[in-house]
Amino acid sequence: MPQLSKKSANMPASPIRKLVPSADVAVQKGLNVYYLNIGQPDIPSPVNALAALQDWDIPVISYTRSEGTVEYREALVDYFHSKGFSDLDISNFVVTNGGSEALMFALGLIANPGDEIIIPEPFYANYNGFAVQSEVNVVPISSDIESGFALPPIVDFEKKITEKTRAIVICHPGNPTGYLYSKEELDQLRDLVLKYDLYLISDEVYREFTYDIPHYSVLNYPELKNHVIVIDSESKRFSMCGIRLGAMISRNKELMAAALKFAQARLSPVLISQVIATAAHKDSVQYLQHAKAEYDSRRNYIVKALNQIPGVFVPKPQGAFYCVARLPVEDAEHFAQWMLEEFDYKGETVMVAPNAGFYSTSGKGKNEVRIAYVLEIEELEKAVVVLAAGLEAYQNRD
Amino acid sequence: MPQLSKKSANMPASPIRKLVPSADVAVQKGLNVYYLNIGQPDIPSPVNALAALQDWDIPVISYTRSEGTVEYREALVDYFHSKGFSDLDISNFVVTNGGSEALMFALGLIANPGDEIIIPEPFYANYNGFAVQSEVNVVPISSDIESGFALPPIVDFEKKITEKTRAIVICHPGNPTGYLYSKEELDQLRDLVLKYDLYLISDEVYREFTYDIPHYSVLNYPELKNHVIVIDSESKRFSMCGIRLGAMISRNKELMAAALKFAQARLSPVLISQVIATAAHKDSVQYLQHAKAEYDSRRNYIVKALNQIPGVFVPKPQGAFYCVARLPVEDAEHFAQWMLEEFDYKGETVMVAPNAGFYSTSGKGKNEVRIAYVLEIEELEKAVVVLAAGLEAYQNRD
Repeated sequence: MPQLSKKSANMPASPIRKLVPSADVAVQKGLNVYYLNIGQPDIPSPVNALAALQDWDIPVISYTRSEGTVEYREALVDYFHSKGFSDLDISNFVVTNGGSEALMFALGLIANPGDEIIIPEPFYANYNGFAVQSEVNVVPISSDIESGFALPPIVDFEKKITEKTRAIVICHPGNPTGYLYSKEELDQLRDLVLKYDLYLISDEVYREFTYDIPHYSVLNYPELKNHVIVIDSESKRFSMCGIRLGAMISRNKELMAAALKFAQARLSPVLISQVIATAAHKDSVQYLQHAKAEYDSRRNYIVKALNQIPGVFVPKPQGAFYCVARLPVEDAEHFAQWMLEEFDYKGETVMVAPNAGFYSTSGKGKNEVRIAYVLEIEELEKAVVVLAAGLEAYQNRD
Repeated sequence: MPQLSKKSANMPASPIRKLVPSADVAVQKGLNVYYLNIGQPDIPSPVNALAALQDWDIPVISYTRSEGTVEYREALVDYFHSKGFSDLDISNFVVTNGGSEALMFALGLIANPGDEIIIPEPFYANYNGFAVQSEVNVVPISSDIESGFALPPIVDFEKKITEKTRAIVICHPGNPTGYLYSKEELDQLRDLVLKYDLYLISDEVYREFTYDIPHYSVLNYPELKNHVIVIDSESKRFSMCGIRLGAMISRNKELMAAALKFAQARLSPVLISQVIATAAHKDSVQYLQHAKAEYDSRRNYIVKALNQIPGVFVPKPQGAFYCVARLPVEDAEHFAQWMLEEFDYKGETVMVAPNAGFYSTSGKGKNEVRIAYVLEIEELEKAVVVLAAGLEAYQNRD
């Protein structure tokens, strides 16, 4: 047969979905599985968004403008104006198939094959996939669970900057870490990207879910107008991952003109999804307050409960709906697989995502797992009991 | 500001959407514009597909499996079984964001940067964009309007095959040509890809719209099971371009395993679109018969009417809903722009797509336009009158 490309071999399997066959084993045994591995929220999508679908009456489901409908981009403009970015207009937005396509566009727009992007690790695992598809090399800078995954020292970044470095990429707040960068940390990144004339790509899809301190967006820096690219998405904000709607946001006019050509090549984002999301943005304040309060309660519960399990350490996240847990095991992937294939507690088990797949440096994070608190507290309570029992049994196994 | 990538500069603007600013001029002057430039069908989407949306009741719009829902892939399997490909099962399909993403996946799966794909020209212009994004070089083989854009001699292909050649790409039936390859032509391509161990990527998104002879899919060759990649889409089949739903189809297991990793990186195709398309495939026979009959009548009308305009030559297409017209002008792009900006006939004008943008070879097709017969015959009749008047006025202008 004809050969496949190098990237076909190099594409990583998803650490989030990798253990699905093991979960199938558990389900086939009749076990009830608590899925804490994937960021699929259980909070209902907004009622008015779903109603927009039901009320919608149009004979032909047609293409939209390649950069997104005017109506949806106006809804995004209103949303970002409400966050204080009053200079933005619809020309600053290209609507995409989820945050994923926005990231693919961003890498394609700024990097040639063999170029480098620097990312604090652990980071959202699919950045690896997008980098491989774009022939771009990820240069990781390790952050530390003891500090709660705070920004690594700027000197660590400077050491890694080469002629091939094109951008610093951050996830803010972080997936998998839940870490929320402070203004002071972001100021340091601002100085760095100005000094070396780099792009700063900030994935802010969890911007609504920040707890003890407010979110400080990189859009706050007018001096970075040509450097900043923000990734946005409706998936988590409105609990509707399945509409696959995101946006690439930038004030860099030349970049946005090129982005439009990328968007035109694939014709258009999804019309129906834009109709739904436009509706979701109307009267969204109460919905978002409720969702945030719910995640905050779950966070407070799960972090406390996990830290009470002997040998477990979980830094308290400030944002998103994930936390990273260091477990008293050597190989968390083996443990996670064992939980699904060989363990149960009263007919139940738990699925978690091994965190090693969220690091780019081989060998890092082997005793860590990512936990998504996307279930109701009553469910989380049961899951924690099962997880604690599993850890005890795993440590005492033959 | 930080530099953009080389591909940002190299990405072509869409020849289909390029004259939109000129069309805006016409609209601002209050003219009625007949849009024959874009393949946005006017035929209503299936009633049962839209009803599926209205009846749909689910609290959370969630991700689906990365390769697409089982239900939708089963609908595709049934559809392809009804076309005689009874060996296909759901593992042969990866569901994508339109045919566009299927093509991007295909190029990423088989080609390294600098590799080459051979395409008979004129071809669907966005292949250029996908190739640039994938760092792949397009090697065109010119087909000829006098032959109706039949497959160029195989010796022309063989001359262009190098160590870097990874695939032959065809659009079947063709956009912009409307040409439908015969079994004999496809047999020649089969022999060629076997001889040189190349992939054969066949974009068959217009497969339902073939007129005087039936569609012969490259899926008919069991000996090409590792070589053939078929691009599918619901956009044109069910007149619902705005759901952005397509699929990559292959019997090559290794290729499909790698495709799943590409699909996982961007998480999932659109849930709602899969619900709609699954519904559209139920009881689709009558809908598709009606659509095909409608396009066939329009084809018969427009080809005859255009050929009656002095100096115009249009080969009769056998498929899709486009035809290429050679006009008695030197520069069809200038003519098309002039029609929008400087001409009107009783307050009306016509927008066509200059065909030069569908060639990769510079200078080819300069006196050709692509016409999409996506309007009702009564509208087409009026558009032809306006176009004929425009051509006469253009030739007689100062």
